Amino acid sequence: MGFWKTWFSSSESVATNKTTAFGEHTAGDRGKSGASSDNIVFSTERDIDLYELEELCDAVGWSRRPLRKVKKAIEHSFLVASMWQVRGNKRRLIGFARATSDHAFNATIWDVVVHPDFQGQGMGKALMKYVLKKLRSEEISNVTLFADPQVVDFYRTMGFMPDPEGIKGMFWYPQ
Amino acid sequence: MGFWKTWFSSSESVATNKTTAFGEHTAGDRGKSGASSDNIVFSTERDIDLYELEELCDAVGWSRRPLRKVKKAIEHSFLVASMWQVRGNKRRLIGFARATSDHAFNATIWDVVVHPDFQGQGMGKALMKYVLKKLRSEEISNVTLFADPQVVDFYRTMGFMPDPEGIKGMFWYPQ
Ligand SMILES: CC(C)(COP(=O)(O)OP(=O)(O)OC[C@H]1O[C@@H](n2cnc3c(N)ncnc32)[C@H](O)[C@@H]1OP(=O)(O)O)[C@@H](O)C(=O)NCCC(=O)NCCS
Ligand SMILES: CC(C)(COP(=O)(O)OP(=O)(O)OC[C@H]1O[C@@H](n2cnc3c(N)ncnc32)[C@H](O)[C@@H]1OP(=O)(O)O)[C@@H](O)C(=O)NCCC(=O)NCCS
Repeated sequence: MGFWKTWFSSSESVATNKTTAFGEHTAGDRGKSGASSDNIVFSTERDIDLYELEELCDAVGWSRRPLRKVKKAIEHSFLVASMWQVRGNKRRLIGFARATSDHAFNATIWDVVVHPDFQGQGMGKALMKYVLKKLRSEEISNVTLFADPQVVDFYRTMGFMPDPEGIKGMFWYPQ
Repeated sequence: MGFWKTWFSSSESVATNKTTAFGEHTAGDRGKSGASSDNIVFSTERDIDLYELEELCDAVGWSRRPLRKVKKAIEHSFLVASMWQVRGNKRRLIGFARATSDHAFNATIWDVVVHPDFQGQGMGKALMKYVLKKLRSEEISNVTLFADPQVVDFYRTMGFMPDPEGIKGMFWYPQ
């Protein structure tokens, strides 16, 4: 549904050998494929194939969520960021993140994921820098997230602080 | 602008001597005024006088924010909850809270405030119960917030857990 039509208006193409702008060791999968024509592309396009997104989330072991709800969440997120490997006219979803926001003061980042094939190469950092750049361009000054314990240091490398001035992240679940 | 018109469709009136439904010791300011005709009313109406809201936030010492941005934030919040003291045809804003959300999985509560004249009487708890009831009715299962250190215990009494399973609240501010 118009994905490619709106693609170039909302995406930013980055040649893998140029992604140093996004992260120190962003090398894409050039090492694996040897194809220097590979592009890593970032997009804020919302028209993402939900099955492709589910596949990505499956790959990191996240539990399945009803696609109906995923669709609604994407529609009502303030920012939806995706990262793609583009080869010729083929594209593969390799990263995703989204943020809720009041469009004025705060944004909260959810569902940050990089496909295991592409982890540990600076891709997560590049995706997060893209997200932060987009949020800053909207004048959002307070960016927050809830980090699983094993990724606190990942976010720390990007300047996120846990519990600043003693502020505590708190959760409530229906009984 | 249509406040009173939409008032009764979106508000829930609670006589002060009946507010125990919302919190153990919600007594309103009946003790002070002696007027048993006082009502405490909750509403999700967004058409709040921004100057009245500013006054409420001033009263708890929050720093001023541009009204233009406050207006935008209210427009783009998923839920806006206000608490009013109603006497005859007069109403006074005595509490406020709002939440951002993806309308599907999560909601994050911001700007919870009760006027100092009404604090310590179960009003904050009643307001939070109202917010949680509204979020539950929208099938939001993951309710989060960021609590200043001095109010962590306030939220704990309502069932909010700090850092469940080691999940850390993290903040990023533009440099
Ligand atoms: C977390 C995740 C997005 C990171 O993506 P990535 O592409 O592997 O990360 P990068 O290669 O860009 O790493 C950037 C920096 O973070 C560090 N880092 C990456 N993953 C880390 C981790 N799990 N713990 C600590 N540090 C980590 C890297 O060493 C690197 O540090 P440096 O810049 O000092 O060299 C990815 O591992 C992932 O999708 N994990 C599964 C899903 C998940 O847990 N998401 C977070 C939910 S809160
Ligand atoms: C925090 C606030 C909303 C609480 O409202 P309140 O009407 O005073 O709270 P309640 O009377 O409903 O208290 C409910 C429970 O929380 C406890 N509580 C209230 N304020 C507390 C605090 N600051 N620290 C610890 N516990 C607190 C009460 O003892 C009561 O416990 P109980 O049910 O076991 O008796 C109010 O004090 C306020 O507006 N503070 C200034 C703004 C602020 O700090 N907001 C939070 C920003 S994260």
